[in-house]
Amino acid sequence: MDNFKIISIKKSIYEGNDARAGILRDELKKDRVFLLNLMSSPGSGKTSTIVRTIEALKGEFRLGILEADLDSDVDARTIARTDTRVIQLHTGGMCHLDADMTRQGLEGLGTANIDLVILENVGNLICTAEFDTGAAKNAMILSVPEGDDKPLKYPGIFRRARLMLLHKIDLLPHTRFDTAAAKVDARRVNPEIEVLETSCLGEPGLGTWVAWIEERVMEKRRGQLESNAV
Amino acid sequence: MDNFKIISIKKSIYEGNDARAGILRDELKKDRVFLLNLMSSPGSGKTSTIVRTIEALKGEFRLGILEADLDSDVDARTIARTDTRVIQLHTGGMCHLDADMTRQGLEGLGTANIDLVILENVGNLICTAEFDTGAAKNAMILSVPEGDDKPLKYPGIFRRARLMLLHKIDLLPHTRFDTAAAKVDARRVNPEIEVLETSCLGEPGLGTWVAWIEERVMEKRRGQLESNAV
Repeated sequence: MDNFKIISIKKSIYEGNDARAGILRDELKKDRVFLLNLMSSPGSGKTSTIVRTIEALKGEFRLGILEADLDSDVDARTIARTDTRVIQLHTGGMCHLDADMTRQGLEGLGTANIDLVILENVGNLICTAEFDTGAAKNAMILSVPEGDDKPLKYPGIFRRARLMLLHKIDLLPHTRFDTAAAKVDARRVNPEIEVLETSCLGEPGLGTWVAWIEERVMEKRRGQLESNAV
Repeated sequence: MDNFKIISIKKSIYEGNDARAGILRDELKKDRVFLLNLMSSPGSGKTSTIVRTIEALKGEFRLGILEADLDSDVDARTIARTDTRVIQLHTGGMCHLDADMTRQGLEGLGTANIDLVILENVGNLICTAEFDTGAAKNAMILSVPEGDDKPLKYPGIFRRARLMLLHKIDLLPHTRFDTAAAKVDARRVNPEIEVLETSCLGEPGLGTWVAWIEERVMEKRRGQLESNAV
C-alpha cells in the first residue's frame, strides 16, 4: 500500500528487576504464600473480580489483597468493605509495579498467616507486562468490550500471563467480539496460556476462575507449585 | 478502617520533553496544520472513531493519520483501507509518545499539504498523559464498559484532555455505568473539559465530535486557534 509506512522507534531498556523478583518468589515459596498478579486494561473488571473471589474463598483461605493505583484509594476501600486485609500501593503516577514495590506491599500486609495474596496491578496493558513482580503466577483479564484484536496489538501481556480471563462475557450479544479469534490469537502469542470465560454480572460467573485459584493455593500449601513467573 | 493502609512509592520524574513539544506546536501553528492527539485505554474505540471521522471529513479537509502501536500494524492497515495517508509508529514496546516520536511521524507523513493530523496514541490511560506530544489539542475517550470511576483513578489523562468522548454510549443499558457521576468527576479533575456522548455502533453517532474537529480545523486555517496543549 502506497499510503502506508512503518517507522520504528528505539526502545528504552528496563533492567535489574528480574533478580529481585526471583528472590521474592523464592521467599514466598518457602513461606507457602501464593502470590497471584492480576493485570489488565483500566476498567476490565479486576476489582469486581477480586471482590467476588474474596467472597468465594474467604472461608477457605487466609487472604490478603494488594491494590496498586496511581494515587486514589477507590479500589482498596471497595476491598476493605469485604473485611479482608488490603494494602493500597500508591505508585505516584508510575504505570506498573516491580518486585521492590510488591515487596513493600507484602511487608505492609504481613504474610506470616496468609495463604493467598492477590495483587491487583495498575490498569495498564503494556507496562505491567514488562516487570516481573515476583508473583508465582500471572493472570490477566481481557474484557469483551475491549475487542478481540488485543493479543495482536499488546502481545507482551499475553506472553507474560499463565491464565487469561475472557471477561464480561455477558456483553457478547451487544458487541462484535469474536471469541474464537481472540483465543486463537492469544494462543498464537503464548501457546501455554489457559483461557477461562467469566462474568461478574451474568453467566457463566467466576466458578472456573475460583477453582483455578483454589487448586494452586492447595498445591502451594503442599509445596508442590512450581513457582515461575509464567 | 483497621484493615486498610496506604503506602506511597516514590515517583520517577520524566523531563525535557516539554520544550521540544512547544517548538513542534509552534511549527505546526505556522504551517496551519491542526494536530489532534487522541488518547484512551486499549479497546476504547480510538481506531473505529478515527475511521468514521475520516469518512465524515475526507471530502472537506486534507487528512493524515499517525497510528502509534507497540509493534503491530493492525490499526494502520485499517486506516489505509480508507485511502488516507497513514504512518504506523512502532514504539518498540514503549507505552507512550513524546514530542520527538510525534515529529518523526509527522516527517514521515509530510505536512506540506495537510490540514488535519489525528494522532492515535498508544492504548494507555496513564503514560500517554504524562508526555506532551506537541499537539494543538488533546482529546480522550472514556468508553462506557470501562466504568464511571476512571476520572478518580486516572486523573492525569482527564487533566490533560480538552475534550472527552463518553463513548460506546449504546452499551449503557447493559452496564452499571453512571453517566452523571463520570461527568461530575471528570469536571472535578478538570473544570475545563468538554464532554460529548458518542457511539460508533448506535445512536447518537459521532456528529458532535466531527463538528468539534471541523470548527477547530477552520479556526486553525484562519490562524485563530490558540495552540496550547490542553
